[in-house]
Amino acid sequence: MRILVVNVNTTQSITDAIGKQAAGAASPGTEIVALTPAFGAESVEGNYESYLAAIAVMETVRAHPEPFDAVIQAGYGEHGREGLQELLDVPVVDITEAAASTAQFLGRRYSVVTTLDRTVPLIEERLQVAGLGARCASVRASGLAVLELERDEQAAVDAITEQAARAVEEDRAEVICLGCGGMAGLAERVAERTGAPVVDGIAAAVTIAESLVRLGLSTSKVRTYARPRPKQIVNWPPKAG
Amino acid sequence: MRILVVNVNTTQSITDAIGKQAAGAASPGTEIVALTPAFGAESVEGNYESYLAAIAVMETVRAHPEPFDAVIQAGYGEHGREGLQELLDVPVVDITEAAASTAQFLGRRYSVVTTLDRTVPLIEERLQVAGLGARCASVRASGLAVLELERDEQAAVDAITEQAARAVEEDRAEVICLGCGGMAGLAERVAERTGAPVVDGIAAAVTIAESLVRLGLSTSKVRTYARPRPKQIVNWPPKAG
Amino acid sequence: MRILVVNVNTTQSITDAIGKQAAGAASPGTEIVALTPAFGAESVEGNYESYLAAIAVMETVRAHPEPFDAVIQAGYGEHGREGLQELLDVPVVDITEAAASTAQFLGRRYSVVTTLDRTVPLIEERLQVAGLGARCASVRASGLAVLELERDEQAAVDAITEQAARAVEEDRAEVICLGCGGMAGLAERVAERTGAPVVDGIAAAVTIAESLVRLGLSTSKVRTYARPRPKQIVNWPPKAG
Amino acid sequence: MRILVVNVNTTQSITDAIGKQAAGAASPGTEIVALTPAFGAESVEGNYESYLAAIAVMETVRAHPEPFDAVIQAGYGEHGREGLQELLDVPVVDITEAAASTAQFLGRRYSVVTTLDRTVPLIEERLQVAGLGARCASVRASGLAVLELERDEQAAVDAITEQAARAVEEDRAEVICLGCGGMAGLAERVAERTGAPVVDGIAAAVTIAESLVRLGLSTSKVRTYARPRPKQIVNWPPKAG
Amino acid sequence: MRILVVNVNTTQSITDAIGKQAAGAASPGTEIVALTPAFGAESVEGNYESYLAAIAVMETVRAHPEPFDAVIQAGYGEHGREGLQELLDVPVVDITEAAASTAQFLGRRYSVVTTLDRTVPLIEERLQVAGLGARCASVRASGLAVLELERDEQAAVDAITEQAARAVEEDRAEVICLGCGGMAGLAERVAERTGAPVVDGIAAAVTIAESLVRLGLSTSKVRTYARPRPKQIVNWPPKAG
Amino acid sequence: MRILVVNVNTTQSITDAIGKQAAGAASPGTEIVALTPAFGAESVEGNYESYLAAIAVMETVRAHPEPFDAVIQAGYGEHGREGLQELLDVPVVDITEAAASTAQFLGRRYSVVTTLDRTVPLIEERLQVAGLGARCASVRASGLAVLELERDEQAAVDAITEQAARAVEEDRAEVICLGCGGMAGLAERVAERTGAPVVDGIAAAVTIAESLVRLGLSTSKVRTYARPRPKQIVNWPPKAG
Repeated sequence: MRILVVNVNTTQSITDAIGKQAAGAASPGTEIVALTPAFGAESVEGNYESYLAAIAVMETVRAHPEPFDAVIQAGYGEHGREGLQELLDVPVVDITEAAASTAQFLGRRYSVVTTLDRTVPLIEERLQVAGLGARCASVRASGLAVLELERDEQAAVDAITEQAARAVEEDRAEVICLGCGGMAGLAERVAERTGAPVVDGIAAAVTIAESLVRLGLSTSKVRTYARPRPKQIVNWPPKAG
Repeated sequence: MRILVVNVNTTQSITDAIGKQAAGAASPGTEIVALTPAFGAESVEGNYESYLAAIAVMETVRAHPEPFDAVIQAGYGEHGREGLQELLDVPVVDITEAAASTAQFLGRRYSVVTTLDRTVPLIEERLQVAGLGARCASVRASGLAVLELERDEQAAVDAITEQAARAVEEDRAEVICLGCGGMAGLAERVAERTGAPVVDGIAAAVTIAESLVRLGLSTSKVRTYARPRPKQIVNWPPKAG
Repeated sequence: MRILVVNVNTTQSITDAIGKQAAGAASPGTEIVALTPAFGAESVEGNYESYLAAIAVMETVRAHPEPFDAVIQAGYGEHGREGLQELLDVPVVDITEAAASTAQFLGRRYSVVTTLDRTVPLIEERLQVAGLGARCASVRASGLAVLELERDEQAAVDAITEQAARAVEEDRAEVICLGCGGMAGLAERVAERTGAPVVDGIAAAVTIAESLVRLGLSTSKVRTYARPRPKQIVNWPPKAG
Repeated sequence: MRILVVNVNTTQSITDAIGKQAAGAASPGTEIVALTPAFGAESVEGNYESYLAAIAVMETVRAHPEPFDAVIQAGYGEHGREGLQELLDVPVVDITEAAASTAQFLGRRYSVVTTLDRTVPLIEERLQVAGLGARCASVRASGLAVLELERDEQAAVDAITEQAARAVEEDRAEVICLGCGGMAGLAERVAERTGAPVVDGIAAAVTIAESLVRLGLSTSKVRTYARPRPKQIVNWPPKAG
Repeated sequence: MRILVVNVNTTQSITDAIGKQAAGAASPGTEIVALTPAFGAESVEGNYESYLAAIAVMETVRAHPEPFDAVIQAGYGEHGREGLQELLDVPVVDITEAAASTAQFLGRRYSVVTTLDRTVPLIEERLQVAGLGARCASVRASGLAVLELERDEQAAVDAITEQAARAVEEDRAEVICLGCGGMAGLAERVAERTGAPVVDGIAAAVTIAESLVRLGLSTSKVRTYARPRPKQIVNWPPKAG
Repeated sequence: MRILVVNVNTTQSITDAIGKQAAGAASPGTEIVALTPAFGAESVEGNYESYLAAIAVMETVRAHPEPFDAVIQAGYGEHGREGLQELLDVPVVDITEAAASTAQFLGRRYSVVTTLDRTVPLIEERLQVAGLGARCASVRASGLAVLELERDEQAAVDAITEQAARAVEEDRAEVICLGCGGMAGLAERVAERTGAPVVDGIAAAVTIAESLVRLGLSTSKVRTYARPRPKQIVNWPPKAG
């Protein structure tokens, strides 16, 4: 089974980290292919960048020359999953939803710890649209930007752990979701400090994608995610270059 | 005052109709500039096309060489308004939200009549995210595609009026919103047949944009719609071609 | 176009302030007529007074000898808008709803800052009934009574600004609505201190009423707001005097 | 114990029927005093009439010369209960809420069968504000006006029973609330035809009022229903005459 | 009239206290029979114990040799009321729901003060399922276990009063529900300290059960609570031992 | 890895079918152990039987002599999962929640097709408590009892397929969940007839349990599902025999 894991940022080192995280969670026999979008922001932290990433991820997946069995969109709180579901016949799993779905099997309420304050509303809205908000205790920001997480791991651990601990104590969360692709690898340390299970969205998404493939299930084409109707698309996709 | 009204489709005749509709609702002294996006689908009827339109509208507005006082996104149920709000300092009005907000001043519950069944979920989700769903009685599809509306006006009137009448009788709507930019001009006939007020989203959006400008109000930059952070955007925007 | 702006209090100086505020927001050619109800409390701060104001406003409007094109009910969180909509064929706009609707075009969440703690529930319930509560971050009380606002403007500015700032920081509001007719004029100072757009309900209501009139739209008579059935009303209205 | 049961209509025969219904449900030792408001509509079927009744009921109760232990507002879906709670130190029970609260002890979902279609929204909104809407399966109109119920009892039984039966079968109600003061006495026949328990709001309210008095409980004065502040009320109440 | 009041714990002294509390609230002519379940935990403080209590209460009631007119399940936040409703033809009242229903007649929002933090989710979920959560301001834990309440009454009063006061001030509750059968008797002292009405669930349940019996109303057998279908039950109930 | 799959009925042939269904979905290296509860109803179709099953499943799992890595509760809409989560340190997966969670990755809305009308409320309430109700289009009953499904497979296929088709067309479901352990094996035929993906809860639960084990995640012990406190349990568990 081959699963595409698509970064939403154009920063290759994040793609590498995501790919490694996904491979670590994959079953024997699953091949993980980590992709960087062909265009877009080096880090996605807001609506404009998220919409741009949405379309970049779609075009990157459409242009992929090899067959694949499932796609994981590896951005937390990003737009676009619905478009991928229309374009593809294989299952599509968004890591925001994968983490929340998984968390709900582990405790009564979960919190998400993410990067900047401005990304909190994006995550909240994606959870709301996905019908996964009822058991979300809070979405908390560590205050660190995506690229800062990469640069100073100890600061990242400290800031994230503090917010996770407050989520458990003040917001009554019982499970923590790490709300950023770039946070891969911190799960163990946050779990140690809070005593709560910590869900990494990428790892969760890999197991869900594998499960759907194994069960022979894929996106319903009955209405919302039916294939786009044939029509003229003007000046798109952009010429490579 | 100059207001940009941006079509989400790349079909120029729809842009023309939208521009005319907007101009008809504008106050004296308001200049309406109707724009066609530089890339995208000839008609937007689904998630992929809607995401593509979202980013196309943003780039088209960003590339506009003249100053302007407000922007109207003239697509019903489309993505992207949040991104425009980040990029711009002037007010941004989405016609889906403009129509619903206006309808709520006219009756207790409103329904939206749109084009194809597959666009119903997009409109429902946009209303949900906008917090405007509580008084939405239903979103109903006429079964006609965007371009069919243009081609056979009598069929459009018939199909839309039938759904509007059922919304009033079966779903207990008291106001009808015409859920497609291309439906401009049908309002009067639907109102006659149903006895309910009919809101055209473009006209509603023009009055709201004008009002915000006159009141000196614009998008809050406090958190969600703060300006994007300075960062590297790779391979974007595409070269004109 | 002539718009009636009806105070809910029987204090003439508040009517004057409301009228001035409305006139400042009106377009050229719009005549603002500010009315004081014929009976009721000098200031409305609770359910009994609010219900009394509801019926006083209705009778005052019904007794108005001149024709008019729209009515604004200028009380924050007060009852009665639904009754006016039944009685009249012209649009009716409540300032609580006008402010919230306008705020929703400006930011993701809004807060209302009002007078006394006991009026908070009234505002919350009116927003809930109007379907405008989903994006309300909080309703906060300044602790000042309506008539105190008039008497000591500096204290009013201070108390209101403090609550507005806490709404932005603690409740994650991005827009502030001034929740009292008597707060007209403070908007600018609150905006300066919080960095968030501040919506004055009276100004917002004027632009909405004007817009509805210009669009040729008025209250649906299909069900909820149909004209009252002809029937005997006993001992009402009270004799003047 | 003395309980005031206040009609919302000014039709004396309805007051008599309500009083009789209440007395039938009262415990030995409870005195029922049925009151007709001093002003207002002969029957309440809409927002204007309901707001007028709200204030008429309050004034009627305030003017009552004898002491009493509780008040029942005997109008279905009417405004005003909150004002009575402010004015009085004894418990106040609204029959809409009494019926719904009682129904919730009897089955998973309940429906209300009321008079005219235009009163449906009033009942829905009162249940929503009272936090009693989550288990409401539907509010259905029999199509008969309040005074018609009085005039042709067989037609009333037939129309109400038909809607009650549809509520059980189509809306999955398990309990029926009779949604009009004037429907007192029909409960048995509706129960026979539908097999579901039928709650009469007046009888339910009597038992709840008695219970609150016996438990020594009354309206909280902590915030929302605190006594009105002392202030000048202009031209009110109207002179008798 | 005979009402069974069933403890959920197997501690006899709690049954005695519950019985006394119920008898104090009962009308003349009502006989209270307090029962201790035949098996289960000495105190119920979590899901396993609550599920065990649910079935123990059902078997205890089924095995009761005398006729009775109503049943009260005297556990706060416990499972099982739905099963009793299926098995019996007489009304069943759960004290969690009785307290909340009663509180809603007394103020706009209520809070529950319970024992341990781990029982908070159970109460929240029971209120949610019962459709009584919309006006619940908070469920707060005193930190004292059920049996500790019995042992040190002064500590119980102090801990509970502190949480009740915080519920009123911080959570905007206007009524307090005592969320544990074993708290019977503390109501007066909590009311004194907070100024808010305090509802004891057992007393409230007694008046509701009496009211339902007097009104001739019992559980709907239309669907959810229809009698169990005849079928083979294996190895159950357990032999007395 | 060893997974216990626990039937809620005491009918061995259903246990066998469930075990076979689970084994078919398991990865190589996963051992499925299907258990029949030691007491309870031959088929569970209502609240009393469901509560009895809840405690029977818990005792059966507690008495299991071998170690295991995860537990699946194989009853649709049944109580008890929370108790298992308290008692165990390994992950617990309920098939109702597993099916809904999986369905949400496949389409925008899902419906459940179950057995008898009386089980519909149980499923609805379990989905509500699990926070999985927002995208549930409907829960529909085929009208066939659990044991009838076993006896006449063709009738089962016909009845279930008809409800599934109506769910897709009338309720706008895009995915179907088979809402009964005994329906295992019908998925393919329902999918063929409706064109929608069909989720079997047992298969879905197996993949989720495997995933949680592989990710090293288990139930949070932070609050709700903490181990029961040590205390005296009277007369329980029942003596074998």
